[in-house]
Amino acid sequence: MHSRRTRRTFLQKTGALLGGLALSGAPVATLADTQGIQRRTPPPPGMNPFGVALVGLGNYATNQLAPALQETERCRLTGIVTGTPAKADKWMAEYNIPEQNVYNYETFDRIADNPDIDIVYVVLPNSMHAEYAIRAAEAGKQVITEKPMATSVRDCERMIEACDQAGVKLSVGYRLHFEPHHQEIMRLGQEQVFGPVTVVEASFSFTSRNTDAWRFSKEMAGGGALLDVGVYAIQGARYTIGEEPVRVRASGYNTRPDIFTEIYETILWEMEFPGGAVSSHSTSYSANVNRLYMMAPRGWARIEPAFMYNSVSGETNEGPMGYPHVTQQALQMDDFARCITEDETSRVSGEEGLKDMQVIEAIYRSIDRNGRWVEV
Amino acid sequence: MHSRRTRRTFLQKTGALLGGLALSGAPVATLADTQGIQRRTPPPPGMNPFGVALVGLGNYATNQLAPALQETERCRLTGIVTGTPAKADKWMAEYNIPEQNVYNYETFDRIADNPDIDIVYVVLPNSMHAEYAIRAAEAGKQVITEKPMATSVRDCERMIEACDQAGVKLSVGYRLHFEPHHQEIMRLGQEQVFGPVTVVEASFSFTSRNTDAWRFSKEMAGGGALLDVGVYAIQGARYTIGEEPVRVRASGYNTRPDIFTEIYETILWEMEFPGGAVSSHSTSYSANVNRLYMMAPRGWARIEPAFMYNSVSGETNEGPMGYPHVTQQALQMDDFARCITEDETSRVSGEEGLKDMQVIEAIYRSIDRNGRWVEV
Repeated sequence: MHSRRTRRTFLQKTGALLGGLALSGAPVATLADTQGIQRRTPPPPGMNPFGVALVGLGNYATNQLAPALQETERCRLTGIVTGTPAKADKWMAEYNIPEQNVYNYETFDRIADNPDIDIVYVVLPNSMHAEYAIRAAEAGKQVITEKPMATSVRDCERMIEACDQAGVKLSVGYRLHFEPHHQEIMRLGQEQVFGPVTVVEASFSFTSRNTDAWRFSKEMAGGGALLDVGVYAIQGARYTIGEEPVRVRASGYNTRPDIFTEIYETILWEMEFPGGAVSSHSTSYSANVNRLYMMAPRGWARIEPAFMYNSVSGETNEGPMGYPHVTQQALQMDDFARCITEDETSRVSGEEGLKDMQVIEAIYRSIDRNGRWVEV
Repeated sequence: MHSRRTRRTFLQKTGALLGGLALSGAPVATLADTQGIQRRTPPPPGMNPFGVALVGLGNYATNQLAPALQETERCRLTGIVTGTPAKADKWMAEYNIPEQNVYNYETFDRIADNPDIDIVYVVLPNSMHAEYAIRAAEAGKQVITEKPMATSVRDCERMIEACDQAGVKLSVGYRLHFEPHHQEIMRLGQEQVFGPVTVVEASFSFTSRNTDAWRFSKEMAGGGALLDVGVYAIQGARYTIGEEPVRVRASGYNTRPDIFTEIYETILWEMEFPGGAVSSHSTSYSANVNRLYMMAPRGWARIEPAFMYNSVSGETNEGPMGYPHVTQQALQMDDFARCITEDETSRVSGEEGLKDMQVIEAIYRSIDRNGRWVEV
């Protein structure tokens, strides 16, 4: 059965949540506690922000993480790792990064000797997360890796092990844990505000036209839309229900084998949770959907679009959620910095990434077994 | 593969669609043909409207069909069949129905001799649809039956057979075929406006508190939320994709066996279509969702709420659909009247109801076989 947690317990468990709302250019917002959102814990007076190095200067690092690092209170962009000298020049100029804080993939390990860099944020193609997270840990740096954490359960375990041995913290770029609509659906679901959750529907698909991208390579991406964006749907069901799925079943489809030569175009899957909730999901590179929907006997909550950086919108049977925009990545990185300072495990720790990867591997096992139910 | 039908062919196939928009109290709307909606064919000059008898005066007959019959152009309410004398008195007074047009379930068959009644509309609990549709056909009357058409494929076949033998037409109360948002999603999907449909998600659940109702009796209702409202989700996928599913798989759940003693509380299912499209569905009496969502490589369409009488709303990736409210049941009944006049098969014929029932039985077979894929 679902445990009946109180609101207090819920907030204790999730810790200091949002912190401030990191509204661009605005003072820290004052969303009332009654809306389920906590303020950002301000940094200790005189705190020297942690230096962050971004590893891989692709689209996400360029357009999301670097701008977010201009809004963070507990960390700042101090280094970059890139194989492209032209990019290095551009970033050094734009973000005032000194030459000694610029690395390429050959010189990366020398980052160990650089006191300007406390946190290494791995933003490489999925298949490279494990290697660089482990090398960062071995260099004594705190580690954030983009989602999906890696491309196999085995790699996730290796990453956790390496960070444990090095005595550094590990977290995954699950930015939505710091977004108020998603924090609210966690509260509604986990606290059973509308009764125990019966069904979650969560789907994330987009039409990928750039079929030469690393996302279409099984070796680089590790498994198509499921790892890329389907992981948000897995996350959504898990944090809405507040339990771990016990078994899954799935089907993989491919209507365009000329384009999808290595990965599934579309995957549909279902999950069963120990308290009786079930969830239903789709993910595809030839479709468009972006939704997290929670159903319970006395109410529902919908976040749609759900998984965006800038246009998350939600409502419940009681009306619009109406939370303001936040810079999810700034809150995520500041919370990781806070965890380092306070020696706390991040709520988006490596274990969280590992659990998703266990589900993902179970989904692939189910597809291989013609959609049979398989234990996670 | 999907066939590439032209818009012309599509409109020919679906026939004269909406007709007018039956806006309550407003003149016939003039939605441009470019929006994919056709006007209602006006009745022939001097046409004497067909007389309709409603069989069963429950909520749907009382609050939807009788009011809709005040808006129809080709038919009018002339008779009632009820086992409750007090209801008969009320209806006679309210709708000016003469005593000789009032029947109960013992006297029902005498309707054969009543020239005021051309069409019998069966609005009884699901398990009684077959018996009364067949008796109406044997009385020589044209037949409409509420959805679900019946509670078994065998009954659907018997109904079709009886109507064929009696030389009368048979249709199912699939009102949404006459609703402009649904007509538009049919066009978008079947004409592949955004490319061939890849995924449809369609779900319909509501929280049923009145657990003593006939809906909770397997004998009366025939199968819980799936027959009751899940059938809309099956319909939605079939008419959006424009194909018949070839196989399905499903799971049935019950978290409250104290309440759901005879039927499943929740069913999740998937369907595969010959052109490569797939669909994903949920239906429940302990949840709330009401949505038809179409995905294709170049666009999407969402109708949400999808299956309501009065608040259908839709949008596509290009913006809101923005169609006005129509009285779906008035259009549905007028189109059936038109089919009688023009000796045409209704687009919501008995065959259409039979196909849904074949899917429903396949879903139950799959549940019985632990969720294995089964052919429809």
